Amino acid sequence: MTVQEGILIVLSGPSGAGKGTICKELLKETDIKYSISATTRKPRKGEKHGREYFFLSKEEFQKKIQEDEFLEWACVYDNYYGTPKSFVEEVLSKGYDCILEIDPQGALKVKKKKPDAVYIFICPPSFNELANRITNRGTEDIQEIKKRLSCAKEEMLSVENYNYVVVNDVVENAVKKIKAIILAEKCRVARNRNLCIK
Amino acid sequence: MTVQEGILIVLSGPSGAGKGTICKELLKETDIKYSISATTRKPRKGEKHGREYFFLSKEEFQKKIQEDEFLEWACVYDNYYGTPKSFVEEVLSKGYDCILEIDPQGALKVKKKKPDAVYIFICPPSFNELANRITNRGTEDIQEIKKRLSCAKEEMLSVENYNYVVVNDVVENAVKKIKAIILAEKCRVARNRNLCIK
Repeated sequence: MTVQEGILIVLSGPSGAGKGTICKELLKETDIKYSISATTRKPRKGEKHGREYFFLSKEEFQKKIQEDEFLEWACVYDNYYGTPKSFVEEVLSKGYDCILEIDPQGALKVKKKKPDAVYIFICPPSFNELANRITNRGTEDIQEIKKRLSCAKEEMLSVENYNYVVVNDVVENAVKKIKAIILAEKCRVARNRNLCIK
Repeated sequence: MTVQEGILIVLSGPSGAGKGTICKELLKETDIKYSISATTRKPRKGEKHGREYFFLSKEEFQKKIQEDEFLEWACVYDNYYGTPKSFVEEVLSKGYDCILEIDPQGALKVKKKKPDAVYIFICPPSFNELANRITNRGTEDIQEIKKRLSCAKEEMLSVENYNYVVVNDVVENAVKKIKAIILAEKCRVARNRNLCIK
Protein backbone atom coordinates (compact mmCIF):
# COMPACT_ATOMS: atom_id res chain seq x y z
CA MET A 1 0.00 0.00 0.00
CA THR A 2 1.33 3.40 -0.88
CA VAL A 3 1.20 6.06 1.79
CA GLN A 4 -0.52 9.32 0.86
CA GLU A 5 2.12 12.05 1.09
CA GLY A 6 1.80 14.46 4.00
CA ILE A 7 1.18 18.17 3.61
CA LEU A 8 3.73 20.89 4.29
CA ILE A 9 2.05 23.62 6.34
CA VAL A 10 3.87 26.94 6.39
CA LEU A 11 2.79 28.99 9.40
CA SER A 12 3.84 32.60 9.19
CA GLY A 13 2.82 36.13 10.11
CA PRO A 14 4.29 39.14 11.87
CA SER A 15 6.24 38.80 15.07
CA GLY A 16 3.79 39.02 17.98
CA ALA A 17 0.91 37.38 16.11
CA GLY A 18 1.31 34.22 18.17
CA LYS A 19 2.70 31.71 15.63
CA GLY A 20 4.81 30.00 18.29
CA THR A 21 1.97 29.38 20.75
CA ILE A 22 -0.31 28.07 18.01
CA CYS A 23 2.41 25.83 16.67
CA LYS A 24 3.13 24.30 20.10
CA GLU A 25 -0.57 23.60 20.60
CA LEU A 26 -0.86 21.94 17.18
CA LEU A 27 2.11 19.68 17.90
CA LYS A 28 0.52 18.71 21.22
CA GLU A 29 -2.92 17.91 19.76
CA THR A 30 -1.98 16.22 16.47
CA ASP A 31 0.72 13.99 15.03
CA ILE A 32 2.05 16.75 12.80
CA LYS A 33 5.85 16.90 12.78
CA TYR A 34 7.85 20.07 13.36
CA SER A 35 10.33 21.16 10.73
CA ILE A 36 13.65 21.45 12.59
CA SER A 37 15.91 24.25 11.42
CA ALA A 38 19.65 24.13 10.92
CA THR A 39 21.91 26.81 12.41
CA THR A 40 25.57 27.67 12.82
CA ARG A 41 25.06 29.29 16.21
CA LYS A 42 26.38 27.40 19.20
CA PRO A 43 23.93 25.16 21.10
CA ARG A 44 22.64 26.72 24.32
CA LYS A 45 22.46 24.75 27.55
CA GLY A 46 19.93 21.94 27.23
CA GLU A 47 19.64 22.18 23.43
CA LYS A 48 20.17 18.96 21.54
CA HIS A 49 21.25 18.39 17.93
CA GLY A 50 18.23 17.18 15.92
CA ARG A 51 15.73 18.37 18.53
CA GLU A 52 15.84 22.18 18.85
CA TYR A 53 18.13 22.59 15.84
CA PHE A 54 20.56 20.80 13.62
CA PHE A 55 23.81 22.42 14.73
CA LEU A 56 26.23 22.76 11.83
CA SER A 57 29.62 24.36 11.32
CA LYS A 58 29.81 27.32 8.97
CA GLU A 59 31.55 25.11 6.41
CA GLU A 60 28.89 22.40 6.59
CA PHE A 61 26.16 25.01 6.24
CA GLN A 62 27.77 26.69 3.23
CA LYS A 63 28.27 23.31 1.55
CA LYS A 64 24.56 22.56 2.00
CA ILE A 65 23.66 25.94 0.51
CA GLN A 66 25.65 25.08 -2.59
CA GLU A 67 24.05 21.64 -2.81
CA ASP A 68 20.60 23.32 -2.75
CA GLU A 69 19.84 21.51 0.49
CA PHE A 70 17.74 24.30 2.04
CA LEU A 71 14.13 25.32 1.40
CA GLU A 72 15.30 28.74 2.58
CA TRP A 73 18.17 30.16 4.56
CA ALA A 74 19.25 33.50 5.96
CA CYS A 75 22.20 34.98 7.76
CA VAL A 76 21.31 36.83 10.97
CA TYR A 77 23.98 38.56 13.09
CA ASP A 78 26.75 36.45 11.62
CA ASN A 79 24.87 33.18 12.17
CA TYR A 80 23.23 31.10 9.48
CA TYR A 81 19.73 29.69 9.86
CA GLY A 82 17.97 27.47 7.35
CA THR A 83 15.29 24.85 6.68
CA PRO A 84 16.81 21.52 5.58
CA LYS A 85 14.91 20.21 2.58
CA SER A 86 15.71 16.52 3.11
CA PHE A 87 14.24 16.47 6.64
CA VAL A 88 10.93 17.96 5.48
CA GLU A 89 10.73 15.66 2.47
CA GLU A 90 11.41 12.57 4.55
CA VAL A 91 8.62 13.46 7.00
CA LEU A 92 6.15 14.09 4.15
CA SER A 93 7.04 10.91 2.30
CA LYS A 94 6.22 8.91 5.45
CA GLY A 95 2.71 10.37 5.29
CA TYR A 96 3.11 12.84 8.14
CA ASP A 97 2.18 16.47 7.81
CA CYS A 98 5.02 18.83 8.57
CA ILE A 99 4.72 22.31 10.05
CA LEU A 100 7.20 25.05 9.32
CA GLU A 101 7.00 28.13 11.56
CA ILE A 102 8.78 30.98 9.85
CA ASP A 103 8.84 34.75 9.33
CA PRO A 104 7.17 36.17 6.21
CA GLN A 105 10.48 36.75 4.40
CA GLY A 106 11.37 33.07 4.84
CA ALA A 107 7.87 31.93 3.87
CA LEU A 108 8.20 33.74 0.53
CA LYS A 109 11.48 31.95 -0.18
CA VAL A 110 9.93 28.56 0.69
CA LYS A 111 7.01 29.27 -1.65
CA LYS A 112 9.35 29.42 -4.63
CA LYS A 113 10.55 25.88 -3.92
CA LYS A 114 7.30 24.42 -2.53
CA PRO A 115 4.41 26.14 -4.30
CA ASP A 116 2.00 23.31 -3.37
CA ALA A 117 2.50 23.68 0.37
CA VAL A 118 -0.30 25.26 2.41
CA TYR A 119 0.51 28.83 3.40
CA ILE A 120 -1.26 30.12 6.50
CA PHE A 121 -0.88 33.69 7.67
CA ILE A 122 -1.42 34.24 11.39
CA CYS A 123 -2.85 37.66 12.00
CA PRO A 124 -3.14 39.56 15.30
CA PRO A 125 -6.75 40.61 16.01
CA SER A 126 -5.83 44.30 15.80
CA PHE A 127 -2.84 46.53 15.50
CA ASN A 128 -3.33 47.78 19.06
CA GLU A 129 -3.34 44.21 20.32
CA LEU A 130 -0.11 43.56 18.43
CA ALA A 131 1.46 46.66 19.98
CA ASN A 132 0.39 45.43 23.44
CA ARG A 133 1.81 41.98 22.87
CA ILE A 134 5.16 43.27 21.70
CA THR A 135 5.32 45.81 24.54
CA ASN A 136 4.27 43.30 27.19
CA ARG A 137 7.12 40.99 26.38
CA GLY A 138 9.10 43.63 28.25
CA THR A 139 12.31 42.64 26.59
CA GLU A 140 12.68 45.45 24.09
CA ASP A 141 13.26 49.18 24.45
CA ILE A 142 10.98 51.80 22.88
CA GLN A 143 13.06 52.17 19.73
CA GLU A 144 13.08 48.41 19.22
CA ILE A 145 9.28 48.23 19.75
CA LYS A 146 8.69 51.01 17.21
CA LYS A 147 10.90 49.24 14.70
CA ARG A 148 9.08 45.96 15.17
CA LEU A 149 5.66 47.53 14.82
CA SER A 150 6.61 49.27 11.61
CA CYS A 151 8.09 45.99 10.38
CA ALA A 152 4.82 44.20 11.28
CA LYS A 153 2.88 46.73 9.22
CA GLU A 154 5.06 45.91 6.25
CA GLU A 155 4.66 42.17 6.85
CA MET A 156 0.87 42.45 6.93
CA LEU A 157 0.97 43.40 3.28
CA SER A 158 2.42 40.01 2.37
CA VAL A 159 -0.85 38.24 3.28
CA GLU A 160 -1.67 38.11 -0.45
CA ASN A 161 0.97 35.41 -0.88
CA TYR A 162 -0.88 33.03 1.41
CA ASN A 163 -3.76 30.60 0.96
CA TYR A 164 -5.36 31.21 4.32
CA VAL A 165 -5.46 33.88 6.99
CA VAL A 166 -6.27 32.98 10.58
CA VAL A 167 -6.92 35.73 13.11
CA ASN A 168 -5.37 34.76 16.41
CA ASP A 169 -7.93 36.22 18.81
CA VAL A 170 -8.21 33.11 20.98
CA VAL A 171 -5.52 30.45 20.54
CA GLU A 172 -8.06 27.62 20.84
CA ASN A 173 -10.11 29.03 17.93
CA ALA A 174 -7.04 29.60 15.78
CA VAL A 175 -5.88 26.02 16.36
CA LYS A 176 -9.35 24.69 15.50
CA LYS A 177 -9.29 26.63 12.23
CA ILE A 178 -5.85 25.38 11.29
CA LYS A 179 -6.89 21.78 11.98
CA ALA A 180 -9.92 22.34 9.73
CA ILE A 181 -7.68 23.78 7.01
CA ILE A 182 -5.44 20.70 7.11
CA LEU A 183 -8.42 18.30 6.96
CA ALA A 184 -9.94 20.31 4.10
CA GLU A 185 -6.65 20.34 2.18
CA LYS A 186 -6.54 16.55 2.41
CA CYS A 187 -9.86 16.55 0.53
CA ARG A 188 -8.63 18.82 -2.30
CA VAL A 189 -9.20 17.22 -5.69
CA ALA A 190 -5.64 18.18 -6.63
CA ARG A 191 -4.33 15.97 -3.80
CA ASN A 192 -6.64 13.02 -4.58
CA ARG A 193 -6.19 12.29 -8.25
CA ASN A 194 -6.12 8.54 -7.58
CA LEU A 195 -8.77 8.37 -4.92
CA CYS A 196 -11.95 8.12 -6.95
CA ILE A 197 -13.32 4.90 -8.28
CA LYS A 198 -12.47 4.29 -11.88
CA MET B 1 -21.41 46.47 10.93
CA THR B 2 -21.33 44.69 7.59
CA VAL B 3 -22.13 40.99 7.55
CA GLN B 4 -19.53 38.71 5.93
CA GLU B 5 -21.26 37.10 2.96
CA GLY B 6 -22.05 33.40 3.32
CA ILE B 7 -20.57 30.69 1.14
CA LEU B 8 -22.46 28.74 -1.52
CA ILE B 9 -21.62 25.05 -1.13
CA VAL B 10 -22.44 22.89 -4.12
CA LEU B 11 -22.73 19.24 -3.07
CA SER B 12 -22.72 16.84 -5.98
CA GLY B 13 -21.64 13.39 -7.10
CA PRO B 14 -23.15 10.32 -8.72
CA SER B 15 -26.54 9.04 -7.70
CA GLY B 16 -26.07 6.57 -4.84
CA ALA B 17 -23.03 8.36 -3.38
CA GLY B 18 -25.11 9.56 -0.46
CA LYS B 19 -25.43 13.32 -1.10
CA GLY B 20 -28.94 13.43 0.35
CA THR B 21 -28.06 11.79 3.68
CA ILE B 22 -25.00 14.00 4.12
CA CYS B 23 -27.00 17.09 3.26
CA LYS B 24 -29.73 16.28 5.80
CA GLU B 25 -27.12 15.73 8.51
CA LEU B 26 -25.39 19.03 7.71
CA LEU B 27 -28.69 20.92 7.93
CA LYS B 28 -29.35 19.28 11.29
CA GLU B 29 -25.92 20.05 12.79
CA THR B 30 -25.29 23.57 11.44
CA ASP B 31 -27.18 26.74 10.55
CA ILE B 32 -26.51 26.28 6.84
CA LYS B 33 -29.59 27.00 4.72
CA TYR B 34 -30.85 24.65 2.02
CA SER B 35 -31.25 25.96 -1.50
CA ILE B 36 -34.90 25.32 -2.38
CA SER B 37 -35.57 24.38 -6.00
CA ALA B 38 -38.37 25.59 -8.20
CA THR B 39 -40.47 23.13 -10.21
CA THR B 40 -43.50 23.01 -12.46
CA ARG B 41 -44.57 19.59 -11.24
CA LYS B 42 -47.67 19.46 -9.04
CA PRO B 43 -47.14 19.46 -5.24
CA ARG B 44 -47.49 16.02 -3.67
CA LYS B 45 -49.50 15.52 -0.51
CA GLY B 46 -47.83 17.32 2.40
CA GLU B 47 -45.50 19.37 0.23
CA LYS B 48 -45.56 23.11 0.85
CA HIS B 49 -44.63 25.98 -1.48
CA GLY B 50 -41.34 27.48 -0.27
CA ARG B 51 -40.44 24.44 1.85
CA GLU B 52 -39.92 21.38 -0.38
CA TYR B 53 -40.10 23.41 -3.60
CA PHE B 54 -41.25 26.66 -5.07
CA PHE B 55 -44.16 25.43 -7.16
CA LEU B 56 -44.51 27.48 -10.33
CA SER B 57 -46.68 27.32 -13.43
CA LYS B 58 -44.98 26.56 -16.72
CA GLU B 59 -45.48 30.18 -17.75
CA GLU B 60 -43.94 31.54 -14.55
CA PHE B 61 -40.99 29.19 -14.92
CA GLN B 62 -40.35 30.13 -18.54
CA LYS B 63 -40.55 33.82 -17.68
CA LYS B 64 -37.91 33.32 -14.98
CA ILE B 65 -35.68 31.50 -17.47
CA GLN B 66 -35.85 34.49 -19.78
CA GLU B 67 -35.11 36.86 -16.93
CA ASP B 68 -31.98 34.82 -16.08
CA GLU B 69 -33.48 34.04 -12.67
CA PHE B 70 -31.99 30.52 -12.39
CA LEU B 71 -28.49 29.37 -11.46
CA GLU B 72 -29.37 26.29 -13.52
CA TRP B 73 -32.50 24.65 -14.81
CA ALA B 74 -33.45 21.46 -16.65
CA CYS B 75 -36.52 19.85 -18.11
CA VAL B 76 -37.13 16.28 -16.92
CA TYR B 77 -40.09 14.24 -18.19
CA ASP B 78 -41.98 17.35 -19.22
CA ASN B 79 -41.44 19.07 -15.88
CA TYR B 80 -39.08 21.96 -15.26
CA TYR B 81 -36.72 22.04 -12.30
CA GLY B 82 -34.38 24.90 -11.43
CA THR B 83 -32.37 26.72 -8.77
CA PRO B 84 -33.72 30.24 -8.15
CA LYS B 85 -30.82 32.68 -8.04
CA SER B 86 -32.53 35.31 -5.88
CA PHE B 87 -33.22 32.86 -3.04
CA VAL B 88 -29.58 31.76 -2.86
CA GLU B 89 -28.29 35.31 -3.07
CA GLU B 90 -30.58 36.52 -0.32
CA VAL B 91 -29.45 33.75 2.02
CA LEU B 92 -25.77 34.51 1.31
CA SER B 93 -26.17 38.26 1.74
CA LYS B 94 -27.61 37.66 5.21
CA GLY B 95 -24.34 35.91 6.10
CA TYR B 96 -25.70 32.36 6.01
CA ASP B 97 -24.00 29.60 4.07
CA CYS B 98 -26.24 27.93 1.53
CA ILE B 99 -26.05 24.31 0.40
CA LEU B 100 -27.12 23.20 -3.04
CA GLU B 101 -27.52 19.46 -3.56
CA ILE B 102 -27.46 18.73 -7.25
CA ASP B 103 -26.44 16.20 -9.90
CA PRO B 104 -23.09 16.69 -11.70
CA GLN B 105 -24.74 18.08 -14.86
CA GLY B 106 -26.46 20.78 -12.83
CA ALA B 107 -23.31 21.51 -10.80
CA LEU B 108 -21.42 22.27 -14.01
CA LYS B 109 -24.08 24.76 -15.07
CA VAL B 110 -23.99 26.46 -11.65
CA LYS B 111 -20.21 26.75 -11.87
CA LYS B 112 -20.48 28.98 -14.91
CA LYS B 113 -22.59 31.47 -12.97
CA LYS B 114 -21.00 31.03 -9.54
CA PRO B 115 -17.32 30.19 -10.08
CA ASP B 116 -16.43 31.27 -6.52
CA ALA B 117 -18.77 28.78 -4.85
CA VAL B 118 -17.24 25.73 -3.14
CA TYR B 119 -17.68 22.58 -5.21
CA ILE B 120 -17.63 19.31 -3.27
CA PHE B 121 -17.83 15.97 -5.01
CA ILE B 122 -19.26 13.14 -2.91
CA CYS B 123 -17.69 9.88 -3.91
CA PRO B 124 -18.82 6.35 -3.03
CA PRO B 125 -16.04 4.33 -1.32
CA SER B 126 -15.90 1.88 -4.22
CA PHE B 127 -17.71 1.00 -7.37
CA ASN B 128 -18.98 -2.24 -5.82
CA GLU B 129 -20.39 -0.31 -2.90
CA LEU B 130 -22.15 2.04 -5.30
CA ALA B 131 -23.66 -0.93 -7.13
CA ASN B 132 -24.87 -2.35 -3.82
CA ARG B 133 -26.44 0.92 -2.78
CA ILE B 134 -28.29 1.36 -6.03
CA THR B 135 -29.45 -2.28 -6.03
CA ASN B 136 -30.53 -2.22 -2.39
CA ARG B 137 -32.88 0.66 -2.94
CA GLY B 138 -34.97 -2.06 -4.55
CA THR B 139 -36.92 0.40 -6.59
CA GLU B 140 -35.27 -0.13 -9.96
CA ASP B 141 -35.19 -3.05 -12.36
CA ILE B 142 -31.97 -4.58 -13.72
CA GLN B 143 -31.89 -2.46 -16.87
CA GLU B 144 -32.40 0.69 -14.84
CA ILE B 145 -29.61 -0.31 -12.42
CA LYS B 146 -27.19 -0.98 -15.28
CA LYS B 147 -28.03 2.36 -16.82
CA ARG B 148 -27.45 4.19 -13.55
CA LEU B 149 -24.14 2.44 -12.91
CA SER B 150 -22.85 3.32 -16.33
CA CYS B 151 -24.06 6.87 -15.81
CA ALA B 152 -22.26 6.98 -12.44
CA LYS B 153 -19.01 5.91 -14.17
CA GLU B 154 -19.37 8.84 -16.53
CA GLU B 155 -20.14 11.20 -13.68
CA MET B 156 -17.03 10.15 -11.76
CA LEU B 157 -14.96 11.72 -14.52
CA SER B 158 -16.36 15.15 -13.73
CA VAL B 159 -14.52 15.23 -10.36
CA GLU B 160 -11.90 17.46 -11.98
CA ASN B 161 -14.40 20.34 -12.00
CA TYR B 162 -14.61 20.33 -8.21
CA ASN B 163 -12.50 21.86 -5.45
CA TYR B 164 -12.87 18.98 -3.02
CA VAL B 165 -13.66 15.29 -3.08
CA VAL B 166 -15.11 13.58 -0.01
CA VAL B 167 -15.36 9.80 0.10
CA ASN B 168 -18.61 8.84 1.78
CA ASP B 169 -17.50 5.71 3.62
CA VAL B 170 -19.08 6.66 6.96
CA VAL B 171 -21.59 9.53 6.88
CA GLU B 172 -20.27 10.94 10.16
CA ASN B 173 -16.74 11.24 8.71
CA ALA B 174 -17.97 12.77 5.48
CA VAL B 175 -19.99 15.38 7.40
CA LYS B 176 -16.97 16.18 9.58
CA LYS B 177 -14.85 16.74 6.48
CA ILE B 178 -17.43 19.01 4.86
CA LYS B 179 -17.71 21.08 8.03
CA ALA B 180 -13.90 21.41 8.02
CA ILE B 181 -13.98 22.46 4.36
CA ILE B 182 -16.50 25.20 5.13
CA LEU B 183 -14.49 26.48 8.12
CA ALA B 184 -11.30 26.41 6.03
CA GLU B 185 -12.94 28.25 3.15
CA LYS B 186 -13.95 31.01 5.55
CA CYS B 187 -10.23 31.49 6.25
CA ARG B 188 -9.25 31.78 2.57
CA VAL B 189 -7.31 34.97 1.90
CA ALA B 190 -9.51 35.57 -1.14
CA ARG B 191 -12.57 35.76 1.14
CA ASN B 192 -10.88 37.99 3.74
CA ARG B 193 -9.44 40.94 1.85
CA ASN B 194 -10.63 43.38 4.51
CA LEU B 195 -9.92 41.32 7.55
CA CYS B 196 -6.28 42.12 8.22
CA ILE B 197 -5.14 45.09 10.18
CA LYS B 198 -3.99 48.00 8.05
